[in-house]
Amino acid sequence: MAKRILYQIPGDLSAGPLGAAELERRRGLLQSWAAQDVTVEVADAPGGPLSIESHAEEAWCVPPMIAAVRRRLHVEEARPAQTGPDAVIVGCFGDPGVAALREILDCPVVGPFEASFHLAAQLGARVGVVTILDSVISLLDQHVRGLGLSLRYAGAVAIDVPVLELKNDPATVKARVSEGAADLVRRRDADVIVIGCMSLAFLGLAEWLTGDRGLPAINPARCALKTAEAFAAQELVQSRRTFPKLRKEMVIASSGSS
Amino acid sequence: MAKRILYQIPGDLSAGPLGAAELERRRGLLQSWAAQDVTVEVADAPGGPLSIESHAEEAWCVPPMIAAVRRRLHVEEARPAQTGPDAVIVGCFGDPGVAALREILDCPVVGPFEASFHLAAQLGARVGVVTILDSVISLLDQHVRGLGLSLRYAGAVAIDVPVLELKNDPATVKARVSEGAADLVRRRDADVIVIGCMSLAFLGLAEWLTGDRGLPAINPARCALKTAEAFAAQELVQSRRTFPKLRKEMVIASSGSS
Amino acid sequence: MAKRILYQIPGDLSAGPLGAAELERRRGLLQSWAAQDVTVEVADAPGGPLSIESHAEEAWCVPPMIAAVRRRLHVEEARPAQTGPDAVIVGCFGDPGVAALREILDCPVVGPFEASFHLAAQLGARVGVVTILDSVISLLDQHVRGLGLSLRYAGAVAIDVPVLELKNDPATVKARVSEGAADLVRRRDADVIVIGCMSLAFLGLAEWLTGDRGLPAINPARCALKTAEAFAAQELVQSRRTFPKLRKEMVIASSGSS
Amino acid sequence: MAKRILYQIPGDLSAGPLGAAELERRRGLLQSWAAQDVTVEVADAPGGPLSIESHAEEAWCVPPMIAAVRRRLHVEEARPAQTGPDAVIVGCFGDPGVAALREILDCPVVGPFEASFHLAAQLGARVGVVTILDSVISLLDQHVRGLGLSLRYAGAVAIDVPVLELKNDPATVKARVSEGAADLVRRRDADVIVIGCMSLAFLGLAEWLTGDRGLPAINPARCALKTAEAFAAQELVQSRRTFPKLRKEMVIASSGSS
Amino acid sequence: MAKRILYQIPGDLSAGPLGAAELERRRGLLQSWAAQDVTVEVADAPGGPLSIESHAEEAWCVPPMIAAVRRRLHVEEARPAQTGPDAVIVGCFGDPGVAALREILDCPVVGPFEASFHLAAQLGARVGVVTILDSVISLLDQHVRGLGLSLRYAGAVAIDVPVLELKNDPATVKARVSEGAADLVRRRDADVIVIGCMSLAFLGLAEWLTGDRGLPAINPARCALKTAEAFAAQELVQSRRTFPKLRKEMVIASSGSS
Amino acid sequence: MAKRILYQIPGDLSAGPLGAAELERRRGLLQSWAAQDVTVEVADAPGGPLSIESHAEEAWCVPPMIAAVRRRLHVEEARPAQTGPDAVIVGCFGDPGVAALREILDCPVVGPFEASFHLAAQLGARVGVVTILDSVISLLDQHVRGLGLSLRYAGAVAIDVPVLELKNDPATVKARVSEGAADLVRRRDADVIVIGCMSLAFLGLAEWLTGDRGLPAINPARCALKTAEAFAAQELVQSRRTFPKLRKEMVIASSGSS
Repeated sequence: MAKRILYQIPGDLSAGPLGAAELERRRGLLQSWAAQDVTVEVADAPGGPLSIESHAEEAWCVPPMIAAVRRRLHVEEARPAQTGPDAVIVGCFGDPGVAALREILDCPVVGPFEASFHLAAQLGARVGVVTILDSVISLLDQHVRGLGLSLRYAGAVAIDVPVLELKNDPATVKARVSEGAADLVRRRDADVIVIGCMSLAFLGLAEWLTGDRGLPAINPARCALKTAEAFAAQELVQSRRTFPKLRKEMVIASSGSS
Repeated sequence: MAKRILYQIPGDLSAGPLGAAELERRRGLLQSWAAQDVTVEVADAPGGPLSIESHAEEAWCVPPMIAAVRRRLHVEEARPAQTGPDAVIVGCFGDPGVAALREILDCPVVGPFEASFHLAAQLGARVGVVTILDSVISLLDQHVRGLGLSLRYAGAVAIDVPVLELKNDPATVKARVSEGAADLVRRRDADVIVIGCMSLAFLGLAEWLTGDRGLPAINPARCALKTAEAFAAQELVQSRRTFPKLRKEMVIASSGSS
Repeated sequence: MAKRILYQIPGDLSAGPLGAAELERRRGLLQSWAAQDVTVEVADAPGGPLSIESHAEEAWCVPPMIAAVRRRLHVEEARPAQTGPDAVIVGCFGDPGVAALREILDCPVVGPFEASFHLAAQLGARVGVVTILDSVISLLDQHVRGLGLSLRYAGAVAIDVPVLELKNDPATVKARVSEGAADLVRRRDADVIVIGCMSLAFLGLAEWLTGDRGLPAINPARCALKTAEAFAAQELVQSRRTFPKLRKEMVIASSGSS
Repeated sequence: MAKRILYQIPGDLSAGPLGAAELERRRGLLQSWAAQDVTVEVADAPGGPLSIESHAEEAWCVPPMIAAVRRRLHVEEARPAQTGPDAVIVGCFGDPGVAALREILDCPVVGPFEASFHLAAQLGARVGVVTILDSVISLLDQHVRGLGLSLRYAGAVAIDVPVLELKNDPATVKARVSEGAADLVRRRDADVIVIGCMSLAFLGLAEWLTGDRGLPAINPARCALKTAEAFAAQELVQSRRTFPKLRKEMVIASSGSS
Repeated sequence: MAKRILYQIPGDLSAGPLGAAELERRRGLLQSWAAQDVTVEVADAPGGPLSIESHAEEAWCVPPMIAAVRRRLHVEEARPAQTGPDAVIVGCFGDPGVAALREILDCPVVGPFEASFHLAAQLGARVGVVTILDSVISLLDQHVRGLGLSLRYAGAVAIDVPVLELKNDPATVKARVSEGAADLVRRRDADVIVIGCMSLAFLGLAEWLTGDRGLPAINPARCALKTAEAFAAQELVQSRRTFPKLRKEMVIASSGSS
Repeated sequence: MAKRILYQIPGDLSAGPLGAAELERRRGLLQSWAAQDVTVEVADAPGGPLSIESHAEEAWCVPPMIAAVRRRLHVEEARPAQTGPDAVIVGCFGDPGVAALREILDCPVVGPFEASFHLAAQLGARVGVVTILDSVISLLDQHVRGLGLSLRYAGAVAIDVPVLELKNDPATVKARVSEGAADLVRRRDADVIVIGCMSLAFLGLAEWLTGDRGLPAINPARCALKTAEAFAAQELVQSRRTFPKLRKEMVIASSGSS
């Protein structure tokens, strides 16, 4: 049974230096990773930040993302014989707005970090993360505690390159990701590495790092996709006990996008 | 040394059924609870939700709140010889946007739930929360895990009255809060009760419940205020290791308020 | 790219009352659940127990299962141009022998309980399990602690029907599974239910229970399959830091099967 | 409303090398840190140890402290129109006797370590402690586990200078405190530093260390005072479920002081 | 090799209603439980409380207990060719003063609760405690957290009979202990019961309760004795990293006993 | 009352390079460590592995061990007036098959790692393990999590010498054990060292290491023996709630040994 999965970026990727071509490039990669009966759609969030590297930008990005998803659903519902996506992935590693979307939507919502950690934990005992900036680390640490996964967490290290500069010097990025992974192994006893940034993920760094056999490196975009496929295939939706359906009319869309 | 504390409501309280008078009423209560050399200012967030009872509304409220705080600081900084507040309290029990504001501001930022739990834990072994709706419970549970306080948490129960209906039937609200506290003691071994909603707090329900001697009931507004005073008096500010100063220009204010 | 997944039952299912037909029936169900490019093979373990409901039977089943897998790989490797499976699922809810197989095999190895819990934890806060007998409960509890997931665990309840009697009285089984799930919600605050027995899973009870909308019920066979597909698609293999490749010659196969 | 707070030192400070002048010096500092309507009284415990740097000295100090508090209350109750203090602080960083006093007294009782950790945890993710001697470290570690705060604890380091020698070589003390804090940051990922000894606290080392902007350093005496003020202002008292009122006649005072 | 074990009661048992005869009765029981080459000596602590049922009495009892132990050692050391005991047991279920004695003594020191829990945890998954009064429960809860054993703890229930009244109505005590154990099983999923009071232990209630086959009931006096024997036989002594040898002259003995 | 304790090695020690003489040598050591009224019997498991250094070998060894125990019991029961052993120790550090044997047997079953950790935790705050190979470390880590003891665990280090080569170069083994212990202290804050391999234990390395006063080193064979004696003396047996008696006929013995 054919499934549609929406990869919803919470930032305004098209408005950034890479433009709409990057959106299309990412869609192509995701589609190439998808199961045969799955169509991946990609969208970004007008009015959202160009990159998300802090609690503040995480907070900023959610309303535009919710607005973008709701506009899309509104348009789709108006078409004859079409329903919404079978699953939605929030395309940012820190999982901003995942809980909010789970309240709003009737389909499963997947966060890349959460999905990656849960798969990584099945490959090794301690999961370490290589991310971009120090400002993301305590955000991830808090997220891990919130998920109740602290006993399986080796911690995170940063390569100290902002998202918007990742393409400037690919060799340095590669070298620092490799050093970061080695540091996680040496000092933190990491057994599995998760690439902690979607932009790094779409640069193929997880696959490159896995070349070092014996130390799996996780691509969060692919893990989120496979998790979304798993939920969509089984028609599993989030618990309404944990994420009660939002009943109040959310006027957030209009206020956020005007 | 005189201190100014800003109690920043992340919702649009003035636009709600209770209007601006409620804002002033709360300011009066907070001022009456404050130390002698402390001035409390109260503000709400135009464009924010009328009440905050879900992950979605928590997400919605943060950008308008940040925008409101930034506008206020911008005005203040333009005045001669005036600086910003000595501490900011986020006036919503779920602590939305606290981490984001800690990145943005140079003064300490206090969340009522976090402040209440940390004080409650010094009064008894297990902390229980009486809140308004079931939809808030898993939000609080996740927050407790994120704070690393699960071993001290007795859980939360809801009175099943939405914020905007709390004033409709005060007798029922009182009765349910009392039943909720009793239930937390009986089934969950709670030793201390935290009133889990700022609107309940400003109705005096913590003080009324404490009348049952031996079972302390915590008013989150007062605990947040006392915690803000503690930080302001000691000139303590959040760690820049956990909450690095946001360096990028946040354009969120304008996009959020237009 | 076509993938082969081996669903390896650690017991001697063919030798039991349901016979080889049950093996084929399960293969058919798994294949119907698989992604389009995935072929599922099913095998059992001659010499293993007819059902696995205790630590003792878990211990008993592993050597015959390892022997069965190794014989199969030996045969396959002898064929021209064929390699082993792309992933192996251990077809027993308690995940017996998963760690051992991870040391032995070069492909990822999936345990149904581990896979189910990690997916369930993305659908709701607290995961409860409905299983067959009390004797399984402390085994699962210990497994959860070993996985480091205790903060997300609501506990397990048993329907008190042994595996080999599940088909005797389907109505009672259904009623007790439903009661068990309700009990987990009421007394243990479970938000998601995992069906805690592969035989229950292949009777369609997860899907039937999910009919109660708002409370997701997890089929561990399907979750294990989707997790195996996720690893196979990404060519991810267990960490050699956690599961070093077994270097000694294992004479277990011959000694176990003679 | 005016409040009186008793800072009760569990050791026999007046009998030590610094004499009664040090008691008065500390009172002066505490009074200078107090809110305007708060009067701080300071007392020590005749018969208690000169310094408290071990489990044994912690055990030794409690009965003389309880005796001292009870004598004081007895005298006060004999005066017309006077009641006891509105809060009591135990003036030793390891919080000896705090639980016992909570059973005995009708006013809130504050421990400096507990109060400091709970405030520090609102300033950063991981709390580290710089204390005096190695012998204190495992004592603090056990205390942190008892408080249920292990997930937020970065550990403790010692400067290896006993309490009674702290004034001998202030430059060395300062240098070692600074090194200790740097070590906690570097090797333990500490985000906030707590000064782990009241004598260090009254030497102004927290304030001096905070000069290194971005890394808050906590003065436990001030944090205990602000926490005591918070409880006194709200008339909050410890839970009688956790700390039942002691009903038996305690003959400890006479036996301890004779 | 013959070993001597000192069972040091931290209270003043001889001064209580049961008198010195009870001391001798307990010695007889302990000796009957001991290994063949072990001599058990029993002592109490003049000036200590008659019973220990609160944090306050725990605090009270430690200095007299330390003084009693030190006087005994002083006398013994004066005798030719005699050394101190090979292990010391603190004869009170809450383990008061155990850490302090570990610093002071050169032989291992055993706490009955700690010893019982560690043995109980090898008999079943979750350990529950039946104790005397509610006032002991939070004391034990905190102790369990301090020991890092919360994941294995089913909690405690009280029979609501003070120590000094246990002999008044043995039938009621028995019935309530039995009810308490049943309640721990039913409501708290306890798998093993620890008798949570030494006076209950010396009344044979653990052995009586174990008559209910399948639910082990632990006698803390016997478990402490067997643990002390285990350390004495192996000549194992507490770590000086956790419990550094007290180097200062402790004047506590004289001040406590005068 | 005389007690018999069976030390059941789960591997085929007699078939290895050291032969049956090693079995007798170990019996002699155990008997020399036993209490006076205790007889120790030692057995190995024909068909089991020569050494156990992985999850796979742990899985392999359990059925032959269960078969060996059952054959022995069968023979003993046939003798007049003889019953089975009063306790059984599984003679392998990773505790393979302990839970299974607890279901099968009516006497207590002791695992060396579990027994050692629980005793070690009474000697110091953090327990570290020196073991043989890296492949054992994640196995032990998972076991510690399963026991719920993570907060007391300092981790494990390996000397990188396989069991069967331990006797080749005793000086190197000694040096590496000593280095390993020092590393655990320096980098992991270990307070107590457990020797993490029975073959190391029977080489006297714990006693040799303890020569470094202040850092207790635990011999797991002796700790298991003392724990078995403790259970046997008290006639304590595992909880049937955690380890229900296996009711099905286990045909494993015959299938495993044929």
